[in-house]
Amino acid sequence: MYDLLSGLRVVEAASFIAAPSRALHLAQLGAEVIRIDQAGGGPDFRRWPLSPGDGPSLYWEGLNKAKKSVALDLSRPEGRALAVQIITAPGKDAGLFVTNFPATGFLAYDRLTPHRPDLICLRVMGWPDGRQAVDYTVNAAIGLPLITGPVGHPGPVNHVLPAWELLAGAYASLCLVSAERARRETGQGREIRVPLSDIAIASLGHLGQIAEAQLTGQDRPRMGNDLFGAFGRDFATADGVRLMVVAITPRQWTGLVVILGLNAAIASLEGELGADFSADESLRFVHRGRLNPMFEAAFACKTAAELGPAFESRGVCWGPYQSLGQALAQDRYFSAANPVLSPVEHPGGRTYLTPGAAATIPGDARRPTPPAPVLGRDTEQVLAEVLGLSSGEIGRLHDAGLAVSAEKGVPL
Amino acid sequence: MYDLLSGLRVVEAASFIAAPSRALHLAQLGAEVIRIDQAGGGPDFRRWPLSPGDGPSLYWEGLNKAKKSVALDLSRPEGRALAVQIITAPGKDAGLFVTNFPATGFLAYDRLTPHRPDLICLRVMGWPDGRQAVDYTVNAAIGLPLITGPVGHPGPVNHVLPAWELLAGAYASLCLVSAERARRETGQGREIRVPLSDIAIASLGHLGQIAEAQLTGQDRPRMGNDLFGAFGRDFATADGVRLMVVAITPRQWTGLVVILGLNAAIASLEGELGADFSADESLRFVHRGRLNPMFEAAFACKTAAELGPAFESRGVCWGPYQSLGQALAQDRYFSAANPVLSPVEHPGGRTYLTPGAAATIPGDARRPTPPAPVLGRDTEQVLAEVLGLSSGEIGRLHDAGLAVSAEKGVPL
Repeated sequence: MYDLLSGLRVVEAASFIAAPSRALHLAQLGAEVIRIDQAGGGPDFRRWPLSPGDGPSLYWEGLNKAKKSVALDLSRPEGRALAVQIITAPGKDAGLFVTNFPATGFLAYDRLTPHRPDLICLRVMGWPDGRQAVDYTVNAAIGLPLITGPVGHPGPVNHVLPAWELLAGAYASLCLVSAERARRETGQGREIRVPLSDIAIASLGHLGQIAEAQLTGQDRPRMGNDLFGAFGRDFATADGVRLMVVAITPRQWTGLVVILGLNAAIASLEGELGADFSADESLRFVHRGRLNPMFEAAFACKTAAELGPAFESRGVCWGPYQSLGQALAQDRYFSAANPVLSPVEHPGGRTYLTPGAAATIPGDARRPTPPAPVLGRDTEQVLAEVLGLSSGEIGRLHDAGLAVSAEKGVPL
Repeated sequence: MYDLLSGLRVVEAASFIAAPSRALHLAQLGAEVIRIDQAGGGPDFRRWPLSPGDGPSLYWEGLNKAKKSVALDLSRPEGRALAVQIITAPGKDAGLFVTNFPATGFLAYDRLTPHRPDLICLRVMGWPDGRQAVDYTVNAAIGLPLITGPVGHPGPVNHVLPAWELLAGAYASLCLVSAERARRETGQGREIRVPLSDIAIASLGHLGQIAEAQLTGQDRPRMGNDLFGAFGRDFATADGVRLMVVAITPRQWTGLVVILGLNAAIASLEGELGADFSADESLRFVHRGRLNPMFEAAFACKTAAELGPAFESRGVCWGPYQSLGQALAQDRYFSAANPVLSPVEHPGGRTYLTPGAAATIPGDARRPTPPAPVLGRDTEQVLAEVLGLSSGEIGRLHDAGLAVSAEKGVPL
């Protein structure tokens, strides 16, 4: 937790990854984030992975750290009206709303602005026309599963990282803070829409891949574990460790060749091909069919223990493959020795390594990472402080089941 | 291009994806971005994919759109001093610097702040200790390649999307705009470091996966194309189309079952297992070995043409697999009909579909997407306007080869 955004108040009504991760970033940079949930939990409240013993969702806890939780019955008009009031509450540093609710419906921008004309609303979507999407369906549409995986594999290979959801979250939080900057200059609010599909399309375009497909008329083929356009692949060492090695810059390449004792063999191949592998990274990719076997043989004669320090001293880009469990057992960056991670007790009663902000600010103190709230923990406080409701009014809302507080013992 | 950040000036000295994509986002939201390159091009200047015929890098063009380009000889002290002057030039809305240069060296934060104490410096790194990393080596370290790919495949399966680089870029740009907001309140500058490794570790933590591995003591197994924790997989239709289908919410599940005519079969299986697949998404994952064959058989009896509209009408989350080339040929979101994409002529002379900001702001006009600059296009202008150098001084720098302008005809 850092204090860059202290004073800002952001309201979130959202589920799954993109929208909650967006407000999570803002909360971990110091903003006050009020999350509104359906009483009893929204569609992501029991999403796997769960805490052992059918406990609470580790996914929900992970994505909702450091937020306030308000639980309302959004299935009834009065519950929805309360949500709108919280979203559009006054305050120079408030009126910031993040959601993945449909662009039409009770949280449509033009149904919120009558209550607060300068509202900034960041809406994550699937496709721009409102069709649903998740990472898997977006990836199917942009061709990544057809170029992922072993050469010759029949059919698509999905990758398991929800990359577009995560990227949409970070990008949308950039848009929100940027829009707030603009509002401070002009007073103008806005709705900003970030479809997952456009995040993916724009990203492939930024990487040159749309231009490549359009100008060459060809799809990039599957290439297994090889890096595109330079030298990189996995190799097995004499002691059975599998390493990923990448050589893009001349220094990375030269260091790798020297440490593996391949100078003479590479020079001979360069002579035969009329190629200079140091000067042109792409030739290493073009001729990888010749290079890979030479490197395989060289790696098979060395142990990871001897290669590691040598690679570091020569600026080679490399790393061993390890499972997440192995990383937690043996890698200091996956322990509380990394300031990004600290053991935090969560409302489900479990204590586990929990990430704060991914950024590190050497000059600022990193404040402890607050856990996720119990669902409805802050309902009363928000109704009182943000909406100015009396305790009598809050009691009436509770009795009607419109606003649910964790403290009331209502089943969550 | 939108105008949210107009007035801000950001200086970039960076290569590859994370740092350049960060300033690209800022430029496409309206900031002035001045990119400083080594004269002749930095290590990413010829990165694949290239324009056909050994033309310019489509990757470089894609990541450096809408930026100004200054080319200096950074190998000499005077060239480095010019870079420092540009980075630390005065101005309330300037003094914002993004880089992936080492945390030590001539662009170390404490070597820049004597020139501008309130400088904000966003530094993307590999590992926090300065070791190099790219997506492939970070993924090896966090275990993703061991759970990606076909069940039973021996060895790691790398995925091909540089997700951490892209995410670090977007997240770091959020940090930059947030730090600028804080500076406007307090006057304080900062260095902020964003290591790729911490982006990956924090993301897995936010998704609950570190907690899962720590609390269960087990690594998540490979599961091929299946979605974790709910129902989702690829299926082939009667007409040979392969679809990705995901059912997380009750509505998605029920729609899928109804359209495939599986109501009775599912009800029978639910009776046998004592399970309610509508109410608990995770049971669909637990029992996928029973469910998948039923769905395979049902999909094999229907065509994609009949399923598509039916899925849309019932809110099923789905999409066909297509290559990027097929998407460009047949999908309107991969054409200029999508406002995010427009045909732009780039300095290499080629015109291709080029993405602007991934966000869409319905109330704001989207300005045309400027192409990447020719290397050194803006050297003279920046030296004159930002540093206030006279034409005589600029001429001397050119003659000494310290500052290179595209217009001078120096080979790029």
